[in-house]
Amino acid sequence: MKWLYFSASDAAASYGVLAEDDHIQEVQGIPWETWQFTGRTYHLSDVKIEVPVVPRTFYAAGLNYVKHIHEYAEKIGVTPAIPTQADIGYRAVNALVAHDEAVIIPADAQQVEYEGEVVVVIGKKGKNLTENEALSCVFGYTIGNDISERLWQASDRTFWRAKNADTFKPMGPWIETEFDLEAAQTTVRVNGKVCTHFRTSEMLFGIRTFISRMSQYIALHPGDVIWMGTDGKSPRLHAGDVVEVEITGLGVLRNHLVAQ
Amino acid sequence: MKWLYFSASDAAASYGVLAEDDHIQEVQGIPWETWQFTGRTYHLSDVKIEVPVVPRTFYAAGLNYVKHIHEYAEKIGVTPAIPTQADIGYRAVNALVAHDEAVIIPADAQQVEYEGEVVVVIGKKGKNLTENEALSCVFGYTIGNDISERLWQASDRTFWRAKNADTFKPMGPWIETEFDLEAAQTTVRVNGKVCTHFRTSEMLFGIRTFISRMSQYIALHPGDVIWMGTDGKSPRLHAGDVVEVEITGLGVLRNHLVAQ
Repeated sequence: MKWLYFSASDAAASYGVLAEDDHIQEVQGIPWETWQFTGRTYHLSDVKIEVPVVPRTFYAAGLNYVKHIHEYAEKIGVTPAIPTQADIGYRAVNALVAHDEAVIIPADAQQVEYEGEVVVVIGKKGKNLTENEALSCVFGYTIGNDISERLWQASDRTFWRAKNADTFKPMGPWIETEFDLEAAQTTVRVNGKVCTHFRTSEMLFGIRTFISRMSQYIALHPGDVIWMGTDGKSPRLHAGDVVEVEITGLGVLRNHLVAQ
Repeated sequence: MKWLYFSASDAAASYGVLAEDDHIQEVQGIPWETWQFTGRTYHLSDVKIEVPVVPRTFYAAGLNYVKHIHEYAEKIGVTPAIPTQADIGYRAVNALVAHDEAVIIPADAQQVEYEGEVVVVIGKKGKNLTENEALSCVFGYTIGNDISERLWQASDRTFWRAKNADTFKPMGPWIETEFDLEAAQTTVRVNGKVCTHFRTSEMLFGIRTFISRMSQYIALHPGDVIWMGTDGKSPRLHAGDVVEVEITGLGVLRNHLVAQ
């Protein structure tokens, strides 16, 4: 089931169920809490797609695909440091934008790149979960683009502007409750040309491992998201570029870049 | 003016104005948006104090007092790295607890310490602010205790459990709109004994500098908080300890430690 968060000209933003024929059945309520159909329907082409959920806490695995770790280390001229345990990181809510919204390149940014990622959306409170129990708190999956400015990533003490400048975190287009991670491929296209392609499941630490470990210290809450990291490398992006992150079964997250 | 977020047995949590005599005038609404008095009053001793605001994005300066940077570097045996620019960091909403709530020491935590900090609460959207304009987006100030497990802080790739384990971020007790930073002193007591004392204003980078720099890349939003860092060092805390962080004019944030 595809859960879209959208706004139409005649109403506040709502969740809706998106069908194969691009019709949306609007609901009142929250998909992972209680909801009911309102009876109103829309067509996807007539609505604005919104960020599918604004998380309470915005988690991100960061380094979680071995090839990406090697390639990034090579780029900045350091020895690759492969994480030895599933230590989760964070991104910032201020940076979120929806499918088809602009990523704004700050005036002094130089090396802006994409990172296509699968995103886990939490639906139930989870604490002290084993790896076998870990997926019980998951509601569904969506796509994230962890836009990064590589010079700031190397120079700054934190990732505050390298990864969390306003508009640097596209997420969407919707939340899919059915997802076959083992079969999934992540493909990133710039202006229609495939630039990155990898098996989504080839993570250093998997979703179950992260959730189980996190939940020993942290309660995961409904609406929290976990971005699972990316593989491969990205070309430098420029104003005017259109980036599409496609993950099998989850759809395509598309955003265009604009100069500040 | 002191803004308290509180719950009484007969109602959902609300904001209220706290008077010198500990009476609370309840309001409907949000202090930095629109509000009106409900006419209901309570006494402070009859209500539960809640976290004064759950931020959209939870910012933290981290290393921002020179003595603390030297003492922490000495403790972990590295050369002190004094930040050369105001790079903001993050903490996680999941970890917030209110005044008088318990800080739970995880079963495998060893070196748990306090960090008493002044907290800036944003009241208006702020973007591209100069240092002179920076305080125009500030609503008020409160107190934070950046509880930290030092071994995890040194061993983990991120601060996820070192600083963001559940209950590791006490904040409160209320938001004070009038605050004389230059006159303020931060005092931290453990079981009534003063363990740390410093001038709150002796920051490496001040509030204006952080807000102005942040706002070049990030829009600050109403309800966001910025924890400004701490000075000095802390003894190891144990279950049963009571930690009080007092900042002149802002009150006392008190929390007790409990073993998991």
